[in-house]
Amino acid sequence: MADSFVFEDNVHIYDTDAQGIVHYAGYYRFFTDATEDFMHETLGINFPLIEKDIWLVVVESEAHYHKPAMLGDMLSVMLNPEIVSDKVLKFNFEILRSGDRICDGHITQISINKNEWKAVPIPEQILDKMKRIL
Amino acid sequence: MADSFVFEDNVHIYDTDAQGIVHYAGYYRFFTDATEDFMHETLGINFPLIEKDIWLVVVESEAHYHKPAMLGDMLSVMLNPEIVSDKVLKFNFEILRSGDRICDGHITQISINKNEWKAVPIPEQILDKMKRIL
Amino acid sequence: MADSFVFEDNVHIYDTDAQGIVHYAGYYRFFTDATEDFMHETLGINFPLIEKDIWLVVVESEAHYHKPAMLGDMLSVMLNPEIVSDKVLKFNFEILRSGDRICDGHITQISINKNEWKAVPIPEQILDKMKRIL
Amino acid sequence: MADSFVFEDNVHIYDTDAQGIVHYAGYYRFFTDATEDFMHETLGINFPLIEKDIWLVVVESEAHYHKPAMLGDMLSVMLNPEIVSDKVLKFNFEILRSGDRICDGHITQISINKNEWKAVPIPEQILDKMKRIL
Repeated sequence: MADSFVFEDNVHIYDTDAQGIVHYAGYYRFFTDATEDFMHETLGINFPLIEKDIWLVVVESEAHYHKPAMLGDMLSVMLNPEIVSDKVLKFNFEILRSGDRICDGHITQISINKNEWKAVPIPEQILDKMKRIL
Repeated sequence: MADSFVFEDNVHIYDTDAQGIVHYAGYYRFFTDATEDFMHETLGINFPLIEKDIWLVVVESEAHYHKPAMLGDMLSVMLNPEIVSDKVLKFNFEILRSGDRICDGHITQISINKNEWKAVPIPEQILDKMKRIL
Repeated sequence: MADSFVFEDNVHIYDTDAQGIVHYAGYYRFFTDATEDFMHETLGINFPLIEKDIWLVVVESEAHYHKPAMLGDMLSVMLNPEIVSDKVLKFNFEILRSGDRICDGHITQISINKNEWKAVPIPEQILDKMKRIL
Repeated sequence: MADSFVFEDNVHIYDTDAQGIVHYAGYYRFFTDATEDFMHETLGINFPLIEKDIWLVVVESEAHYHKPAMLGDMLSVMLNPEIVSDKVLKFNFEILRSGDRICDGHITQISINKNEWKAVPIPEQILDKMKRIL
Protein backbone atom coordinates (compact mmCIF):
# COMPACT_ATOMS: atom_id res chain seq x y z
CA MET A 1 0.00 0.00 0.00
CA ALA A 2 1.12 3.49 -0.76
CA ASP A 3 2.08 5.94 1.92
CA SER A 4 -0.45 8.49 3.08
CA PHE A 5 -0.96 11.71 1.19
CA VAL A 6 -0.25 14.64 3.49
CA PHE A 7 -2.00 18.02 3.55
CA GLU A 8 -1.17 20.83 5.94
CA ASP A 9 -3.25 23.70 7.23
CA ASN A 10 -3.40 26.08 10.17
CA VAL A 11 -6.27 26.22 12.59
CA HIS A 12 -8.19 29.43 11.86
CA ILE A 13 -10.37 31.39 14.29
CA TYR A 14 -13.58 30.16 12.62
CA ASP A 15 -12.52 26.54 13.23
CA THR A 16 -12.60 27.13 17.00
CA ASP A 17 -15.43 27.47 19.50
CA ALA A 18 -15.96 28.89 23.00
CA GLN A 19 -14.03 25.95 24.49
CA GLY A 20 -10.94 27.51 22.89
CA ILE A 21 -10.37 24.43 20.71
CA VAL A 22 -11.29 23.28 17.23
CA HIS A 23 -15.05 22.60 17.17
CA TYR A 24 -15.71 18.85 16.70
CA ALA A 25 -17.53 19.37 13.39
CA GLY A 26 -14.74 21.69 12.24
CA TYR A 27 -12.41 18.73 11.66
CA TYR A 28 -14.63 17.68 8.77
CA ARG A 29 -13.41 20.83 6.97
CA PHE A 30 -9.87 19.42 7.19
CA PHE A 31 -11.10 16.01 5.99
CA THR A 32 -12.91 17.61 3.04
CA ASP A 33 -9.96 19.84 2.11
CA ALA A 34 -7.59 16.87 2.03
CA THR A 35 -10.00 14.81 -0.07
CA GLU A 36 -10.70 17.58 -2.58
CA ASP A 37 -7.03 18.57 -2.83
CA PHE A 38 -6.04 14.95 -3.41
CA MET A 39 -8.67 14.31 -6.07
CA HIS A 40 -8.37 17.72 -7.71
CA GLU A 41 -4.69 18.58 -7.52
CA THR A 42 -3.05 15.15 -7.33
CA LEU A 43 -5.37 13.32 -9.74
CA GLY A 44 -6.90 16.15 -11.80
CA ILE A 45 -10.44 14.99 -11.04
CA ASN A 46 -13.29 17.43 -10.42
CA PHE A 47 -14.56 16.33 -7.06
CA PRO A 48 -17.16 15.56 -5.82
CA LEU A 49 -18.95 16.64 -9.04
CA ILE A 50 -16.83 14.27 -11.12
CA GLU A 51 -18.83 14.42 -14.36
CA LYS A 52 -21.84 16.35 -15.63
CA ASP A 53 -24.22 13.68 -14.32
CA ILE A 54 -22.06 11.73 -11.87
CA TRP A 55 -21.50 12.91 -8.33
CA LEU A 56 -19.89 11.37 -5.28
CA VAL A 57 -22.21 11.83 -2.30
CA VAL A 58 -21.32 11.21 1.34
CA VAL A 59 -23.04 8.24 3.00
CA GLU A 60 -21.02 8.04 6.21
CA SER A 61 -18.78 10.29 8.31
CA GLU A 62 -16.99 9.54 11.57
CA ALA A 63 -14.35 11.15 13.75
CA HIS A 64 -12.61 10.35 17.02
CA TYR A 65 -11.04 13.23 18.92
CA HIS A 66 -7.89 12.47 20.94
CA LYS A 67 -6.32 15.82 21.85
CA PRO A 68 -7.59 19.37 21.36
CA ALA A 69 -6.10 21.61 18.65
CA MET A 70 -5.89 25.39 19.17
CA LEU A 71 -5.90 28.57 17.09
CA GLY A 72 -2.75 28.81 14.97
CA ASP A 73 -1.76 25.14 15.34
CA MET A 74 -0.28 23.68 12.17
CA LEU A 75 -2.05 20.39 11.49
CA SER A 76 -0.97 17.60 9.15
CA VAL A 77 -3.84 15.66 7.60
CA MET A 78 -2.73 12.16 6.51
CA LEU A 79 -5.10 10.79 3.88
CA ASN A 80 -5.45 7.12 2.90
CA PRO A 81 -7.97 6.71 0.07
CA GLU A 82 -9.53 3.27 -0.37
CA ILE A 83 -11.51 1.86 -3.32
CA VAL A 84 -14.22 -0.18 -1.55
CA SER A 85 -16.06 -1.19 -4.72
CA ASP A 86 -16.64 0.19 -8.22
CA LYS A 87 -19.24 2.50 -6.65
CA VAL A 88 -17.81 3.34 -3.24
CA LEU A 89 -14.72 5.23 -2.05
CA LYS A 90 -13.57 5.52 1.55
CA PHE A 91 -11.24 8.26 2.68
CA ASN A 92 -9.39 7.54 5.93
CA PHE A 93 -7.80 10.38 7.86
CA GLU A 94 -5.39 10.93 10.71
CA ILE A 95 -4.66 14.46 11.88
CA LEU A 96 -1.35 15.09 13.61
CA ARG A 97 0.25 18.11 15.31
CA SER A 98 4.02 17.72 15.66
CA GLY A 99 3.58 13.94 15.76
CA ASP A 100 0.73 14.00 18.32
CA ARG A 101 -2.44 12.29 17.14
CA ILE A 102 -5.25 14.88 17.36
CA CYS A 103 -8.07 13.20 15.47
CA ASP A 104 -8.82 10.31 13.14
CA GLY A 105 -11.86 9.34 11.12
CA HIS A 106 -13.26 8.62 7.71
CA ILE A 107 -15.73 9.70 5.06
CA THR A 108 -17.43 7.21 2.73
CA GLN A 109 -18.81 8.39 -0.60
CA ILE A 110 -20.93 6.62 -3.19
CA SER A 111 -21.17 7.37 -6.90
CA ILE A 112 -24.63 8.37 -8.14
CA ASN A 113 -26.32 9.55 -11.29
CA LYS A 114 -27.51 12.92 -10.06
CA ASN A 115 -30.65 12.91 -12.25
CA GLU A 116 -31.90 9.56 -10.92
CA TRP A 117 -30.15 9.85 -7.56
CA LYS A 118 -29.25 6.16 -7.97
CA ALA A 119 -25.89 4.44 -7.41
CA VAL A 120 -23.83 3.98 -10.59
CA PRO A 121 -20.27 2.77 -11.19
CA ILE A 122 -17.51 5.36 -10.89
CA PRO A 123 -16.18 6.04 -14.43
CA GLU A 124 -13.33 3.64 -15.18
CA GLN A 125 -10.76 6.24 -16.14
CA ILE A 126 -11.19 7.76 -12.67
CA LEU A 127 -10.77 4.44 -10.86
CA ASP A 128 -7.73 3.80 -13.08
CA LYS A 129 -6.17 7.13 -12.09
CA MET A 130 -6.72 6.24 -8.45
CA LYS A 131 -5.41 2.67 -8.78
CA ARG A 132 -2.22 3.87 -10.44
CA ILE A 133 -1.35 5.98 -7.41
CA LEU A 134 -2.67 3.87 -4.49
CA MET B 1 -44.22 51.54 7.99
CA ALA B 2 -44.92 48.26 9.69
CA ASP B 3 -43.16 47.26 12.87
CA SER B 4 -40.20 44.94 12.64
CA PHE B 5 -40.67 41.20 12.36
CA VAL B 6 -39.00 39.50 15.30
CA PHE B 7 -37.21 36.14 15.33
CA GLU B 8 -35.56 34.59 18.38
CA ASP B 9 -32.76 32.09 18.69
CA ASN B 10 -30.14 30.98 21.18
CA VAL B 11 -26.44 31.25 20.58
CA HIS B 12 -25.14 27.73 19.96
CA ILE B 13 -21.59 26.46 20.54
CA TYR B 14 -20.84 26.44 16.79
CA ASP B 15 -21.72 30.15 16.57
CA THR B 16 -18.85 30.99 18.94
CA ASP B 17 -15.09 31.12 18.49
CA ALA B 18 -11.99 31.03 20.69
CA GLN B 19 -12.68 34.61 21.87
CA GLY B 20 -15.66 33.10 23.73
CA ILE B 21 -18.12 35.21 21.73
CA VAL B 22 -20.21 34.82 18.59
CA HIS B 23 -17.85 34.78 15.60
CA TYR B 24 -18.37 37.91 13.46
CA ALA B 25 -19.45 35.92 10.40
CA GLY B 26 -21.77 33.84 12.60
CA TYR B 27 -24.24 36.73 12.84
CA TYR B 28 -25.00 36.24 9.15
CA ARG B 29 -26.60 32.91 10.15
CA PHE B 30 -29.05 34.86 12.30
CA PHE B 31 -29.67 37.33 9.44
CA THR B 32 -30.31 34.47 7.01
CA ASP B 33 -32.58 32.58 9.42
CA ALA B 34 -34.73 35.69 9.99
CA THR B 35 -34.98 36.37 6.24
CA GLU B 36 -35.84 32.78 5.32
CA ASP B 37 -38.33 32.41 8.17
CA PHE B 38 -40.02 35.68 7.20
CA MET B 39 -40.27 34.83 3.51
CA HIS B 40 -41.10 31.15 4.03
CA GLU B 41 -43.30 31.07 7.12
CA THR B 42 -44.83 34.55 7.14
CA LEU B 43 -45.30 34.94 3.38
CA GLY B 44 -45.30 31.33 2.10
CA ILE B 45 -42.56 32.07 -0.44
CA ASN B 46 -39.80 29.59 -1.23
CA PHE B 47 -36.69 31.61 -0.58
CA PRO B 48 -34.17 32.35 -2.00
CA LEU B 49 -35.10 29.86 -4.78
CA ILE B 50 -38.44 31.60 -5.35
CA GLU B 51 -39.41 29.94 -8.64
CA LYS B 52 -37.97 27.19 -10.83
CA ASP B 53 -35.88 29.73 -12.77
CA ILE B 54 -35.90 32.79 -10.50
CA TRP B 55 -33.51 33.12 -7.59
CA LEU B 56 -32.66 35.92 -5.21
CA VAL B 57 -28.85 36.21 -4.95
CA VAL B 58 -26.93 38.27 -2.41
CA VAL B 59 -25.08 41.32 -3.79
CA GLU B 60 -24.17 43.03 -0.52
CA SER B 61 -23.77 42.13 3.16
CA GLU B 62 -22.77 44.32 6.07
CA ALA B 63 -22.70 44.10 9.86
CA HIS B 64 -21.64 46.34 12.75
CA TYR B 65 -20.85 44.69 16.04
CA HIS B 66 -21.64 46.65 19.22
CA LYS B 67 -21.47 44.19 22.12
CA PRO B 68 -20.38 40.55 22.23
CA ALA B 69 -22.96 37.75 22.56
CA MET B 70 -22.09 34.53 24.40
CA LEU B 71 -23.05 30.84 24.35
CA GLY B 72 -26.67 30.36 25.47
CA ASP B 73 -27.68 34.02 25.04
CA MET B 74 -31.20 34.43 23.71
CA LEU B 75 -31.05 36.88 20.82
CA SER B 76 -33.94 38.76 19.19
CA VAL B 77 -33.44 39.47 15.50
CA MET B 78 -35.56 42.46 14.37
CA LEU B 79 -36.08 42.33 10.61
CA ASN B 80 -37.19 45.29 8.43
CA PRO B 81 -37.59 44.18 4.80
CA GLU B 82 -37.44 46.88 2.14
CA ILE B 83 -38.46 46.75 -1.54
CA VAL B 84 -35.71 48.81 -3.21
CA SER B 85 -36.93 48.26 -6.79
CA ASP B 86 -38.84 45.59 -8.72
CA LYS B 87 -35.57 43.63 -8.84
CA VAL B 88 -33.93 44.36 -5.49
CA LEU B 89 -34.82 43.59 -1.87
CA LYS B 90 -32.97 44.86 1.18
CA PHE B 91 -33.26 43.16 4.54
CA ASN B 92 -32.27 45.35 7.51
CA PHE B 93 -31.47 43.73 10.84
CA GLU B 94 -30.97 44.69 14.44
CA ILE B 95 -30.00 42.02 16.97
CA LEU B 96 -30.89 42.64 20.62
CA ARG B 97 -30.23 40.78 23.87
CA SER B 98 -32.58 41.91 26.66
CA GLY B 99 -32.85 45.31 24.99
CA ASP B 100 -29.07 45.72 24.46
CA ARG B 101 -28.08 46.32 20.85
CA ILE B 102 -25.60 43.56 19.92
CA CYS B 103 -25.34 43.92 16.16
CA ASP B 104 -27.00 45.57 13.18
CA GLY B 105 -26.57 45.21 9.44
CA HIS B 106 -28.21 44.37 6.16
CA ILE B 107 -28.27 41.98 3.23
CA THR B 108 -29.23 43.11 -0.29
CA GLN B 109 -30.51 40.55 -2.80
CA ILE B 110 -31.26 40.85 -6.50
CA SER B 111 -33.64 38.76 -8.56
CA ILE B 112 -32.04 36.80 -11.40
CA ASN B 113 -32.98 34.28 -14.03
CA LYS B 114 -30.72 31.44 -12.93
CA ASN B 115 -30.19 30.12 -16.47
CA GLU B 116 -28.95 33.45 -17.84
CA TRP B 117 -27.67 34.72 -14.50
CA LYS B 118 -29.17 38.10 -15.46
CA ALA B 119 -31.33 40.45 -13.36
CA VAL B 120 -35.08 40.04 -13.91
CA PRO B 121 -38.11 41.53 -12.12
CA ILE B 122 -39.32 39.74 -9.01
CA PRO B 123 -42.66 38.03 -9.87
CA GLU B 124 -45.53 40.43 -9.14
CA GLN B 125 -47.50 38.14 -6.88
CA ILE B 126 -44.45 37.95 -4.60
CA LEU B 127 -43.99 41.74 -4.47
CA ASP B 128 -47.73 42.01 -3.82
CA LYS B 129 -47.52 39.60 -0.87
CA MET B 130 -44.66 41.67 0.54
CA LYS B 131 -46.39 45.04 -0.04
CA ARG B 132 -49.52 43.87 1.73
CA ILE B 133 -47.57 43.20 4.91
CA LEU B 134 -44.92 45.97 4.90
CA MET C 1 -36.74 3.73 28.29
CA ALA C 2 -38.27 7.11 27.66
CA ASP C 3 -39.46 8.18 24.25
CA SER C 4 -37.19 10.32 22.12
CA PHE C 5 -37.09 14.06 22.57
CA VAL C 6 -38.06 15.75 19.31
CA PHE C 7 -36.70 19.00 17.87
CA GLU C 8 -37.77 20.53 14.58
CA ASP C 9 -35.98 22.87 12.21
CA ASN C 10 -36.03 23.88 8.58
CA VAL C 11 -33.12 23.38 6.23
CA HIS C 12 -31.58 26.80 5.59
CA ILE C 13 -29.58 27.86 2.53
CA TYR C 14 -26.28 27.73 4.49
CA ASP C 15 -26.94 24.08 5.38
CA THR C 16 -26.83 23.14 1.69
CA ASP C 17 -24.00 22.77 -0.80
CA ALA C 18 -23.55 22.73 -4.59
CA GLN C 19 -25.10 19.25 -4.76
CA GLY C 20 -28.39 20.97 -3.83
CA ILE C 21 -28.67 18.95 -0.61
CA VAL C 22 -27.70 19.39 3.02
CA HIS C 23 -23.90 19.22 3.26
CA TYR C 24 -22.86 16.06 5.17
CA ALA C 25 -21.18 18.03 7.96
CA GLY C 26 -24.23 20.30 8.16
CA TYR C 27 -26.23 17.57 9.92
CA TYR C 28 -23.96 18.02 12.94
CA ARG C 29 -25.58 21.45 13.37
CA PHE C 30 -28.93 19.71 13.79
CA PHE C 31 -27.36 17.20 16.23
CA THR C 32 -25.81 20.04 18.26
CA ASP C 33 -28.99 22.12 18.30
CA ALA C 34 -31.04 19.17 19.59
CA THR C 35 -28.46 18.40 22.29
CA GLU C 36 -28.13 22.01 23.46
CA ASP C 37 -31.88 22.61 23.39
CA PHE C 38 -32.49 19.42 25.38
CA MET C 39 -29.85 20.18 28.02
CA HIS C 40 -30.56 23.92 28.19
CA GLU C 41 -34.32 24.22 27.75
CA THR C 42 -35.58 20.85 28.97
CA LEU C 43 -33.12 20.39 31.85
CA GLY C 44 -31.96 23.95 32.61
CA ILE C 45 -28.29 22.96 32.28
CA ASN C 46 -25.72 25.25 30.67
CA PHE C 47 -24.23 23.06 28.00
CA PRO C 48 -21.56 22.15 27.10
CA LEU C 49 -19.97 24.60 29.59
CA ILE C 50 -21.87 23.05 32.49
CA GLU C 51 -19.98 24.68 35.37
CA LYS C 52 -17.23 27.27 35.68
CA ASP C 53 -14.54 24.57 35.49
CA ILE C 54 -16.43 21.60 34.07
CA TRP C 55 -17.01 21.20 30.36
CA LEU C 56 -18.38 18.41 28.21
CA VAL C 57 -16.05 17.89 25.23
CA VAL C 58 -16.78 15.79 22.16
CA VAL C 59 -14.70 12.60 21.77
CA GLU C 60 -16.63 10.95 18.96
CA SER C 61 -19.05 11.91 16.20
CA GLU C 62 -20.68 9.73 13.55
CA ALA C 63 -23.43 10.05 10.97
CA HIS C 64 -24.99 7.84 8.30
CA TYR C 65 -26.82 9.51 5.46
CA HIS C 66 -29.83 7.68 3.97
CA LYS C 67 -31.71 10.23 1.86
CA PRO C 68 -30.85 13.78 0.87
CA ALA C 69 -32.65 16.74 2.50
CA MET C 70 -33.26 19.95 0.53
CA LEU C 71 -33.64 23.68 1.19
CA GLY C 72 -36.85 24.40 3.10
CA ASP C 73 -37.42 20.79 4.23
CA MET C 74 -38.79 20.57 7.76
CA LEU C 75 -36.69 18.03 9.66
CA SER C 76 -37.53 16.29 12.93
CA VAL C 77 -34.51 15.43 15.05
CA MET C 78 -35.25 12.56 17.46
CA LEU C 79 -32.79 12.62 20.37
CA ASN C 80 -32.08 9.69 22.70
CA PRO C 81 -29.61 10.72 25.41
CA GLU C 82 -27.66 7.95 27.15
CA ILE C 83 -25.62 8.04 30.38
CA VAL C 84 -22.65 5.79 29.49
CA SER C 85 -20.79 6.31 32.78
CA ASP C 86 -20.46 9.03 35.42
CA LYS C 87 -18.09 10.80 33.00
CA VAL C 88 -19.53 10.04 29.58
CA LEU C 89 -22.77 10.96 27.80
CA LYS C 90 -23.85 9.67 24.42
CA PHE C 91 -26.46 11.47 22.33
CA ASN C 92 -28.14 9.30 19.67
CA PHE C 93 -29.98 10.96 16.81
CA GLU C 94 -32.37 10.07 14.05
CA ILE C 95 -33.46 12.74 11.58
CA LEU C 96 -36.78 12.27 9.81
CA ARG C 97 -38.68 14.17 7.11
CA SER C 98 -42.38 13.26 7.00
CA GLY C 99 -41.52 9.83 8.38
CA ASP C 100 -38.63 9.19 5.97
CA ARG C 101 -35.31 8.43 7.65
CA ILE C 102 -32.81 11.01 6.37
CA CYS C 103 -29.84 10.55 8.70
CA ASP C 104 -28.84 8.93 11.98
CA GLY C 105 -25.77 9.17 14.14
CA HIS C 106 -24.35 10.01 17.55
CA ILE C 107 -22.10 12.33 19.48
CA THR C 108 -20.18 11.16 22.57
CA GLN C 109 -19.02 13.72 25.13
CA ILE C 110 -16.77 13.36 28.17
CA SER C 111 -16.71 15.54 31.26
CA ILE C 112 -13.41 17.33 31.91
CA ASN C 113 -11.94 19.83 34.30
CA LYS C 114 -11.08 22.55 31.81
CA ASN C 115 -8.02 23.74 33.75
CA GLU C 116 -6.37 20.32 33.84
CA TRP C 117 -8.08 19.06 30.67
CA LYS C 118 -8.58 15.75 32.53
CA ALA C 119 -11.71 13.59 32.79
CA VAL C 120 -13.78 14.20 35.95
CA PRO C 121 -17.21 12.95 37.04
CA ILE C 122 -20.23 14.89 35.80
CA PRO C 123 -21.71 16.78 38.80
CA GLU C 124 -24.30 14.56 40.51
CA GLN C 125 -27.16 17.06 40.40
CA ILE C 126 -26.80 17.09 36.62
CA LEU C 127 -26.82 13.31 36.29
CA ASP C 128 -29.81 13.29 38.65
CA LYS C 129 -31.71 15.74 36.46
CA MET C 130 -30.98 13.56 33.44
CA LYS C 131 -31.93 10.29 35.20
CA ARG C 132 -35.25 11.70 36.31
CA ILE C 133 -36.28 12.33 32.73
CA LEU C 134 -34.67 9.41 30.83
CA MET D 1 1.60 52.48 -0.42
CA ALA D 2 2.74 48.91 -0.69
CA ASP D 3 1.27 46.48 -3.16
CA SER D 4 -1.42 44.11 -1.99
CA PHE D 5 -0.56 40.86 -0.27
CA VAL D 6 -1.97 37.95 -2.25
CA PHE D 7 -3.38 34.67 -0.91
CA GLU D 8 -4.77 31.88 -3.06
CA ASP D 9 -7.28 29.18 -2.28
CA ASN D 10 -9.72 26.89 -4.07
CA VAL D 11 -13.44 26.98 -3.54
CA HIS D 12 -14.37 23.88 -1.55
CA ILE D 13 -17.74 22.11 -1.51
CA TYR D 14 -18.58 23.50 1.97
CA ASP D 15 -18.10 27.06 0.66
CA THR D 16 -20.99 26.57 -1.77
CA ASP D 17 -24.75 26.45 -1.31
CA ALA D 18 -27.78 25.18 -3.23
CA GLN D 19 -27.44 28.04 -5.75
CA GLY D 20 -24.28 26.25 -6.93
CA ILE D 21 -22.10 29.23 -5.99
CA VAL D 22 -20.06 30.34 -3.00
CA HIS D 23 -22.48 31.24 -0.18
CA TYR D 24 -22.34 34.99 0.52
CA ALA D 25 -21.12 34.52 4.10
CA GLY D 26 -18.54 32.00 2.86
CA TYR D 27 -16.38 34.80 1.44
CA TYR D 28 -15.66 35.91 5.00
CA ARG D 29 -13.70 32.64 5.36
CA PHE D 30 -11.42 33.83 2.54
CA PHE D 31 -11.13 37.29 4.18
CA THR D 32 -10.26 35.72 7.53
CA ASP D 33 -7.74 33.30 6.04
CA ALA D 34 -5.92 36.11 4.24
CA THR D 35 -5.84 38.26 7.39
CA GLU D 36 -4.61 35.46 9.65
CA ASP D 37 -2.05 34.25 7.12
CA PHE D 38 -0.73 37.79 6.67
CA MET D 39 -0.47 38.53 10.39
CA HIS D 40 0.75 35.06 11.36
CA GLU D 41 3.02 33.98 8.52
CA THR D 42 4.18 37.30 7.07
CA LEU D 43 4.52 39.21 10.36
CA GLY D 44 4.87 36.43 12.96
CA ILE D 45 2.01 37.82 15.07
CA ASN D 46 -0.49 35.57 16.82
CA PHE D 47 -3.78 36.83 15.49
CA PRO D 48 -6.38 37.79 16.57
CA LEU D 49 -5.25 36.73 20.08
CA ILE D 50 -2.15 38.92 19.84
CA GLU D 51 -1.08 38.81 23.49
CA LYS D 52 -2.26 37.02 26.63
CA ASP D 53 -4.66 39.87 27.45
CA ILE D 54 -4.92 41.74 24.15
CA TRP D 55 -7.26 40.62 21.41
CA LEU D 56 -8.35 42.15 18.13
CA VAL D 57 -12.15 41.91 17.87
CA VAL D 58 -14.22 42.57 14.76
CA VAL D 59 -16.43 45.69 14.85
CA GLU D 60 -17.45 45.83 11.20
CA SER D 61 -17.65 43.52 8.19
CA GLU D 62 -18.83 44.25 4.66
CA ALA D 63 -18.79 42.55 1.28
CA HIS D 64 -20.02 43.32 -2.24
CA TYR D 65 -20.55 40.42 -4.60
CA HIS D 66 -19.91 41.03 -8.30
CA LYS D 67 -19.74 37.62 -9.98
CA PRO D 68 -20.43 34.14 -8.61
CA ALA D 69 -17.56 31.73 -7.86
CA MET D 70 -18.04 27.98 -8.25
CA LEU D 71 -16.67 24.76 -6.77
CA GLY D 72 -13.01 24.25 -7.69
CA ASP D 73 -12.42 27.86 -8.78
CA MET D 74 -8.99 29.16 -7.77
CA LEU D 75 -9.46 32.53 -6.09
CA SER D 76 -6.83 35.19 -5.42
CA VAL D 77 -7.47 37.26 -2.31
CA MET D 78 -5.74 40.66 -2.50
CA LEU D 79 -5.27 42.09 1.00
CA ASN D 80 -4.57 45.76 1.79
CA PRO D 81 -4.12 46.23 5.55
CA GLU D 82 -4.61 49.76 6.94
CA ILE D 83 -3.67 51.21 10.34
CA VAL D 84 -6.68 53.43 11.11
CA SER D 85 -5.47 54.49 14.59
CA ASP D 86 -3.35 53.04 17.38
CA LYS D 87 -6.37 50.93 18.33
CA VAL D 88 -8.01 50.11 15.00
CA LEU D 89 -6.95 48.06 11.96
CA LYS D 90 -8.87 47.80 8.71
CA PHE D 91 -8.32 44.95 6.28
CA ASN D 92 -9.47 45.64 2.71
CA PHE D 93 -10.01 42.77 0.31
CA GLU D 94 -10.54 42.15 -3.34
CA ILE D 95 -11.14 38.61 -4.59
CA LEU D 96 -10.26 37.82 -8.20
CA ARG D 97 -10.61 34.77 -10.44
CA SER D 98 -8.36 34.93 -13.50
CA GLY D 99 -8.51 38.72 -13.33
CA ASP D 100 -12.30 38.92 -12.91
CA ARG D 101 -13.45 40.79 -9.82
CA ILE D 102 -15.62 38.38 -7.82
CA CYS D 103 -16.01 40.15 -4.49
CA ASP D 104 -14.60 43.03 -2.45
CA GLY D 105 -15.07 44.13 1.13
CA HIS D 106 -13.42 44.86 4.45
CA ILE D 107 -13.16 43.83 8.07
CA THR D 108 -12.43 46.38 10.83
CA GLN D 109 -10.94 45.19 14.11
CA ILE D 110 -10.32 47.01 17.38
CA SER D 111 -7.76 46.18 20.05
CA ILE D 112 -9.23 45.35 23.47
CA ASN D 113 -8.07 44.18 26.87
CA LYS D 114 -9.98 40.93 27.03
CA ASN D 115 -10.42 41.06 30.82
CA GLU D 116 -12.06 44.52 30.80
CA TRP D 117 -13.40 44.20 27.23
CA LYS D 118 -12.29 47.84 26.75
CA ALA D 119 -10.37 49.37 23.84
CA VAL D 120 -6.60 49.63 24.41
CA PRO D 121 -3.72 50.59 22.12
CA ILE D 122 -2.25 47.85 19.95
CA PRO D 123 1.24 47.00 21.35
CA GLU D 124 3.84 49.23 19.67
CA GLN D 125 6.10 46.43 18.46
CA ILE D 126 3.15 45.04 16.52
CA LEU D 127 2.29 48.38 14.90
CA ASP D 128 5.99 48.77 14.12
CA LYS D 129 6.11 45.40 12.37
CA MET D 130 3.07 46.40 10.32
CA LYS D 131 4.41 49.88 9.47
CA ARG D 132 7.68 48.44 8.25
CA ILE D 133 5.90 46.37 5.63
CA LEU D 134 2.97 48.61 4.60
